Amino acid sequence: MNSDEKNEARIGRQEEIYRIACRYLPGGISRNAIFRRPHPFYVASASGAYITDISGVTRVDFSNNMASLIHGHAHPALVKSACEQIAKGTAYAIATEAEVRLAQHLCERVQGFDKIRFVNSGTEAVMAMIKAARCFTGRPKIAKAEGAYHGSYDFAEVSQAASPANWGNLDSPNNVPLVFGTPREVLDNVVVYHFNDVERTMAILDRQADKIACVLVDPVPHRIGFIPAEERFILALRQWTKRNGALLAFDEVISFRIEYGGAQACYPVTPDLTALGKMIGGGFPIGAFAGRDEIMQNLDPRSAPLKFPLSGTFSANPVSMSAGLAAMELYSEEAVAKINALTQTAINQVYEAARTAGIQISITGGGSLFKIHFRKTAPTTFREAFEDDNLKKVSDAFIEHLHEKGVIIVNSCSCVLSTVMVQKEIDILSEAALSGFRHVKPMLD
Amino acid sequence: MNSDEKNEARIGRQEEIYRIACRYLPGGISRNAIFRRPHPFYVASASGAYITDISGVTRVDFSNNMASLIHGHAHPALVKSACEQIAKGTAYAIATEAEVRLAQHLCERVQGFDKIRFVNSGTEAVMAMIKAARCFTGRPKIAKAEGAYHGSYDFAEVSQAASPANWGNLDSPNNVPLVFGTPREVLDNVVVYHFNDVERTMAILDRQADKIACVLVDPVPHRIGFIPAEERFILALRQWTKRNGALLAFDEVISFRIEYGGAQACYPVTPDLTALGKMIGGGFPIGAFAGRDEIMQNLDPRSAPLKFPLSGTFSANPVSMSAGLAAMELYSEEAVAKINALTQTAINQVYEAARTAGIQISITGGGSLFKIHFRKTAPTTFREAFEDDNLKKVSDAFIEHLHEKGVIIVNSCSCVLSTVMVQKEIDILSEAALSGFRHVKPMLD
Repeated sequence: MNSDEKNEARIGRQEEIYRIACRYLPGGISRNAIFRRPHPFYVASASGAYITDISGVTRVDFSNNMASLIHGHAHPALVKSACEQIAKGTAYAIATEAEVRLAQHLCERVQGFDKIRFVNSGTEAVMAMIKAARCFTGRPKIAKAEGAYHGSYDFAEVSQAASPANWGNLDSPNNVPLVFGTPREVLDNVVVYHFNDVERTMAILDRQADKIACVLVDPVPHRIGFIPAEERFILALRQWTKRNGALLAFDEVISFRIEYGGAQACYPVTPDLTALGKMIGGGFPIGAFAGRDEIMQNLDPRSAPLKFPLSGTFSANPVSMSAGLAAMELYSEEAVAKINALTQTAINQVYEAARTAGIQISITGGGSLFKIHFRKTAPTTFREAFEDDNLKKVSDAFIEHLHEKGVIIVNSCSCVLSTVMVQKEIDILSEAALSGFRHVKPMLD
Repeated sequence: MNSDEKNEARIGRQEEIYRIACRYLPGGISRNAIFRRPHPFYVASASGAYITDISGVTRVDFSNNMASLIHGHAHPALVKSACEQIAKGTAYAIATEAEVRLAQHLCERVQGFDKIRFVNSGTEAVMAMIKAARCFTGRPKIAKAEGAYHGSYDFAEVSQAASPANWGNLDSPNNVPLVFGTPREVLDNVVVYHFNDVERTMAILDRQADKIACVLVDPVPHRIGFIPAEERFILALRQWTKRNGALLAFDEVISFRIEYGGAQACYPVTPDLTALGKMIGGGFPIGAFAGRDEIMQNLDPRSAPLKFPLSGTFSANPVSMSAGLAAMELYSEEAVAKINALTQTAINQVYEAARTAGIQISITGGGSLFKIHFRKTAPTTFREAFEDDNLKKVSDAFIEHLHEKGVIIVNSCSCVLSTVMVQKEIDILSEAALSGFRHVKPMLD
């Protein structure tokens, strides 16, 4: 075969795998995020900032598995740490020192983490955090922001995909189910508020004041548009929860990377509970929740009655713990400052590319996360940030164009950096973005 | 230091780690199963059937991380498979061939698996399976057996820890919350039935016939006493669900190991949905649910509207997929037959040990799982199997004695074999059991 034939054979191989995949997986995929037409790409290998698919095409990765890989792919220190552990076993019904060391690191890293409990995913972390809040307060309801994603626990996913067709009026938004068949009683136990809208949120919370166990908030919510929470909004939530006997529960599964002590370090408040996941596992499955002693002690098996029993076959498994500790130790204050500065450079270069292409964009985000909006003024709330079908088409075309130019970004038109990136990758991104902006310009005119 | 001093220093080291652990983890632990007084043990390394703690003590492992390790610890084929993948990256927002190959293997292995979806734990598998059942049927309630453990999704854990103090009468059992603060509306959406009690279960289900989305059943439920479901019970559930438009949902997170095609291969029925976990990940975090095409297609991202969107950062990660496939391929029909035969030998030797010690026991279980009951007649239902404080004391003393003799078993007095075990380990178990039976005999007299 000549090289053209080889290439065709490789492309054929991806189609072939997808054809088989469709026989065994609904839609041929295991996660909606990887779905593509006519077929998903299949990874051959990845290293540092780059992923090579089985057709032999290498692309720079600004997705980093939805913000879960803080040090890019196959970082030598994490590979070493994981494989050393694996040779000694991956899971036991006995403790390991690794879980203690990661717990110590995280609790010493963040001022409000008195104690921590590990689980297996962000979904499990948010679910356990909500159960801990109900357990501590004896109240049934949670409050969450319209449009915010918090994993797949059904209470936490109410109104995650609200749209103009169903979200209702601002003063009393509808509780919109995500999954068909969500029980009415699940919807009724959720209070949907408006991110960054202090006055309306206070009014909404007040109406259910004595029923709310916790107010759940992601301080830099991805699906709301990577818009950072305004300080006055977080302060209002802190004051309201204190005044009303509810807990303030941060979802920092994604946002934990934005400062050394998490996004919460950017605000003059301490949440009662925080859910973690993604990067703290060093690329391996993990979740955790941490917070105030008197809340966490309900999980202590020495207490009688034990108010919150929680098991988990793979929770605190030593592979996730060891790789996680290695990842967190590498993510020092210096590393955080460096990646955040590089992200600022990337944002500036993307803005510059848009100016050069002659289109108006805005960028929101925090730390090493940012999202491109195809509109002049940056949105500050979910409903402002909502993209109609036309805007979504522009965004999708831009993402697809970047992909062809060898750059992977998140399907929300967001970019996530890793610490192994340098100026070179930023230049690749901004050059592809320039080309992408020119490509979509006719759609915007 | 001489060897006595060294040993003391090592024991001191476990106490020291636990002292630190208590500062950062509630009760100093990450999973209730590993809690021990005065401190948990900490693993240094494990290989095959053996675990060595950091005091240098090696014990044979009949827990296998709560039945999740079908090939014991650090099996060379699984270590190789995992580490080869890790060198190429552990997670991407792009597909891998590994997920397709594991999906294919499992769907071809089990007759009723038309399609499969991967998640990160048994908890997530059961939660997603329940959501899939609600989505398909449009009904809000689930039915589950009193005493059965199905992970930590709150609906699935109702009455998991029911006891004589709160379980109510047989004909209308109470819905007992596990975690303090479980919303009333969660309890009300669960119908608690009696495992292996056909007549009462039918009467209970009939009362809520038009509200039940699925009847959840573990065919060999661990916390009910590893009692296999009687064929007439499973047949009754199958007929009832068909007649009443509900789904039959098996939880095979543990029981999947007992036959090549899972425990369901032992019954003349095909469940509509099955939850998997534990062993199918080759020692790495995993969960999955599989079943009928028309139910699973609600997850297909190509459908509009998409009735059941489901994300998951680590779902189908290629490390769990690769190690899982290696584990499942090794667990051939021959391997299943061999481990099940060895388990029968173990059961016979444990019975023999009890006879030699002059005490009466019974053993329940299936495949490579069994539980020792300190009573003459094997229980057939949860309430029969329930252990009062006296029986629990006997069981705990027996487990502790085995531990001192170098044998780890599950804290429910259950044993789980791995394929790397041979007659030698069975002899170690039965000799320790003989000593243990003699040790607890005075407590039973």
